[in-house]
Amino acid sequence: MTKSSESPSQRTRLKRGHERGDYKKQTIHDILKAMPLCHVSYILDGAPVVTPTFQWREGDHVYWHGSSASRMIRKSTDADVCMAVTILDGMVMARSAFHHSVNYRSVMLFGKASVVDDPEIAAKRLEGMIESLYPGRWDMLRPMTDKELKATTVLSMPVDEASAKIRTGQPIDDDEDYELPIWAGVVPVQLSVGAPIDDPRNLEGVTTPPHATGFKIG
Amino acid sequence: MTKSSESPSQRTRLKRGHERGDYKKQTIHDILKAMPLCHVSYILDGAPVVTPTFQWREGDHVYWHGSSASRMIRKSTDADVCMAVTILDGMVMARSAFHHSVNYRSVMLFGKASVVDDPEIAAKRLEGMIESLYPGRWDMLRPMTDKELKATTVLSMPVDEASAKIRTGQPIDDDEDYELPIWAGVVPVQLSVGAPIDDPRNLEGVTTPPHATGFKIG
Repeated sequence: MTKSSESPSQRTRLKRGHERGDYKKQTIHDILKAMPLCHVSYILDGAPVVTPTFQWREGDHVYWHGSSASRMIRKSTDADVCMAVTILDGMVMARSAFHHSVNYRSVMLFGKASVVDDPEIAAKRLEGMIESLYPGRWDMLRPMTDKELKATTVLSMPVDEASAKIRTGQPIDDDEDYELPIWAGVVPVQLSVGAPIDDPRNLEGVTTPPHATGFKIG
Repeated sequence: MTKSSESPSQRTRLKRGHERGDYKKQTIHDILKAMPLCHVSYILDGAPVVTPTFQWREGDHVYWHGSSASRMIRKSTDADVCMAVTILDGMVMARSAFHHSVNYRSVMLFGKASVVDDPEIAAKRLEGMIESLYPGRWDMLRPMTDKELKATTVLSMPVDEASAKIRTGQPIDDDEDYELPIWAGVVPVQLSVGAPIDDPRNLEGVTTPPHATGFKIG
């Protein structure tokens, strides 16, 4: 089942809207980088469950983490999972209900989730998570304790059974509908980032770091 | 398994961070209303799949739709599904890696998906989708054809096995870490909506409707 992302497997080959499919590794990496929020699905007692969490990529693997005691982590381990990363870019209003759509960038990944067993590697990956979100922050923090590391499980999955799907631009209406006096267009949507709000318990003289003032997402 | 949303079932009772759980119907409805983007998971050939789509609620049911030919629709029908709706509100930076978090509002729904079989009711639900996103738009559109209705399947699920989870505010650090000179705080994140971009093929004199200029999400 596992295939290079440049040669889609049966599952990742898009069935609908395939003209929007893109299997290029760079496209997939760009979307994973732009949107750490993801949804991971796994099977619990025979039924699907989907959980929001954060992902980050290093090399050819994507990682996510959770409490070692969480059912999301326990039920995903060595099991089939599917991860979706979705960025909403705009609302697309057409001249018929049928052709309404949205603009988006999305990635879907399939694979088996594995636990990063080696504590040193797991610690390095958690550092990678913090650094991918907030460059320079890891070394400013109170160091992670062994107890915290034990309470945290890092899961990984190869980014090889993956597809990206992207829609941009105006609605595509039926030819004859372009003659109708109906407003059509796109309302752009994007995640915007506000000014950092200092914790009121920050010590005096502590300054807001660039990874907070310059944070970007989406 | 099915329970009122005010009395959580085994699956919806939150296992982690249960102090953040909220089973009140109004909270769940508010989050579903604020964020039409959802992720639906279902089982395909024994493995989980998660697909982004849009949901809308009418009464005690949540609805979503797709091409009648799509595997998401075919494999979800009369099957167990799980739907997650997630709104990211902020990045929460603590004094230790361990206590980093995010602010969010989320809903998780479990249930069996059913097809809205009656074409008249399905058409009414699709009108409901358009109207929930863009009030007043349905009556402005070129009417839906029977062929379009046939090509579209509307799925529904009762909103009764549901839970909401919300986090707000500053990081919760270990007591002794508050004495460290480390910046902590929240970077707010929200979906922002830009000015509508007219389709260049709009007829002259067509004006941008209030549901486009006043569109809100999140």
